[in-house]
Amino acid sequence: MTLRTPALRAPRAALVIVILECVLAIAQADPLPSWNDSGAKKAIIAFVERVTKEGGPDFVPVSERIATFDNDGTLWVEQPIYTQFVFALDRIKALAPQHPEWKTEQPFKAVLENDQSALLASGEAGIMKIMAASHGGMTTDEFTSIVEKWMATAKHPRFKRSYTECVYQPMLELLAYLRANGFKTYIVSGGGVEFMRPWTEKVYGVPPEQVIGSSAKEKFELRNGKPVLLRLPQVNFIDDGPGKPVGISQYIGRRPIAALGNSDGDQQMLEWTARRQPSFMLLVHHTDAEREYAYDRNSHVGKLDKALDEATARGWIVVDMKKDWRTIFPPSK
Amino acid sequence: MTLRTPALRAPRAALVIVILECVLAIAQADPLPSWNDSGAKKAIIAFVERVTKEGGPDFVPVSERIATFDNDGTLWVEQPIYTQFVFALDRIKALAPQHPEWKTEQPFKAVLENDQSALLASGEAGIMKIMAASHGGMTTDEFTSIVEKWMATAKHPRFKRSYTECVYQPMLELLAYLRANGFKTYIVSGGGVEFMRPWTEKVYGVPPEQVIGSSAKEKFELRNGKPVLLRLPQVNFIDDGPGKPVGISQYIGRRPIAALGNSDGDQQMLEWTARRQPSFMLLVHHTDAEREYAYDRNSHVGKLDKALDEATARGWIVVDMKKDWRTIFPPSK
Repeated sequence: MTLRTPALRAPRAALVIVILECVLAIAQADPLPSWNDSGAKKAIIAFVERVTKEGGPDFVPVSERIATFDNDGTLWVEQPIYTQFVFALDRIKALAPQHPEWKTEQPFKAVLENDQSALLASGEAGIMKIMAASHGGMTTDEFTSIVEKWMATAKHPRFKRSYTECVYQPMLELLAYLRANGFKTYIVSGGGVEFMRPWTEKVYGVPPEQVIGSSAKEKFELRNGKPVLLRLPQVNFIDDGPGKPVGISQYIGRRPIAALGNSDGDQQMLEWTARRQPSFMLLVHHTDAEREYAYDRNSHVGKLDKALDEATARGWIVVDMKKDWRTIFPPSK
Repeated sequence: MTLRTPALRAPRAALVIVILECVLAIAQADPLPSWNDSGAKKAIIAFVERVTKEGGPDFVPVSERIATFDNDGTLWVEQPIYTQFVFALDRIKALAPQHPEWKTEQPFKAVLENDQSALLASGEAGIMKIMAASHGGMTTDEFTSIVEKWMATAKHPRFKRSYTECVYQPMLELLAYLRANGFKTYIVSGGGVEFMRPWTEKVYGVPPEQVIGSSAKEKFELRNGKPVLLRLPQVNFIDDGPGKPVGISQYIGRRPIAALGNSDGDQQMLEWTARRQPSFMLLVHHTDAEREYAYDRNSHVGKLDKALDEATARGWIVVDMKKDWRTIFPPSK
């Protein structure tokens, strides 16, 4: 396109100005639009500006900008029960035809009969049996495919949307904002690493190699000359509570400068991060029964008690979901 | 600077041409100058061009360009004994004053008296005792500092240079060449992960979070209110042989498209990588007694037997160190 006459040049100049204004607007746009302009948001932005200011006293080089996020209750809904346990129960039901003995054997009988009190009575040993039977005995590739299929159809009982849509919009923005500022964002979750990796990149922008979680033991085998990794019904690592700093040490080998969680299971991760200066520690406090859930000290899922006291005593950021978050969920597709 | 006269413009034009020629020369420069122009080098370059050619049938997106390198014998010298074991023996000697009982207790007595036959006689159980006593019982930060101090002074007995200078120049070039082509380079080593992480970024350009290795169990503790990770004298994970695909699965969660090793301990990693297409498998064959070492099927350290047969049968690249490498080591500082 050539513009030769003054009559055409004038609108072109106007167009240039409009474009420039748009560029400026985008550059200055609020990176956290789903956060209200309260203390939590201000503290986040102040921290990021402090550690990215070249020549400043708190400047942190890009290679050391590691942020670790818990998943359940921090990035997505964990109520009324952990999503992975819903998956495990569905899996037991799907496998039941191959296991006629489960009709009479606890805790499987309880699962098949939706008998919650019998399930609770089976205790931790019962839960471990359910996890082993539902998560072990297949190859890693088979497990990934099972998770993908389940995720594509399962819906949250209250929000009636897929679990990967029950993620927190303010946290999606925070992940993106940190990455735009040179941070490497990790998930450090008590959940199973192979339960998360099939979808974390698409949903959170976090690639598989930046997901740390609990894991089953795996065994290398040749099947008809083809190598597979078999998932054994044995626990390899529990990435929860004091296990989180261990997971960070084993998998990342660096200390994060930002750690974000929501429960007592995240307390040690935040303590470990707080030893380094500058550092940023944040807890999501679920205070919004109307839009999501309200729970803390007495909750069976995502109990937040000691960590809340420590956060208060040490001045860590506590997000009050009801007050600090303008929006909870992204639009459903 | 302003150049107004024709007399000054002419040299300026010449300068521009010279600069352009330099830029072109750098762009076309041989990325692997320490490799002879033999089959191995040609195969490497052909593979990289194939997987990076956008729109080509074998194009691999950047996020999936994962290359895993063994360390001992692949990136640095592993003869006459693994460097980490030299470190362990030195550490036992340094700790001996605090352990008078070691004067009479095997395998420590053998270490303190440099009695190789008694040390060998102590077998695997003896080696595990030495590793536990030398690598456990301190915090992760303390261990890092011990490794750094040792690395700064220890010398290879034959090459009389620091161990981090006993690395292979052709492999340094290969690491850099892969990274320049969008690959994420990982170390997947039987060696201890915390023994490698303090120096891999400086020496290989591989950051701590891309180093996978064997590990000790770790325990989170508060010491006077300050969190530490204590290294326990217990094995957490052995990243060798069939453990390497397991390590890759647990830590990376993606299948590599290139795997490079030198011993039977790397066989399963190469098999695991070969299942994916396109993929690149390479073994370094130590054939150069004069410049480095010559060993394979009967070596106690870095035994290369079954993997060599499989590489030959399946057409994997076998680097003949003597013929394929122009230079072995980088210049000593």
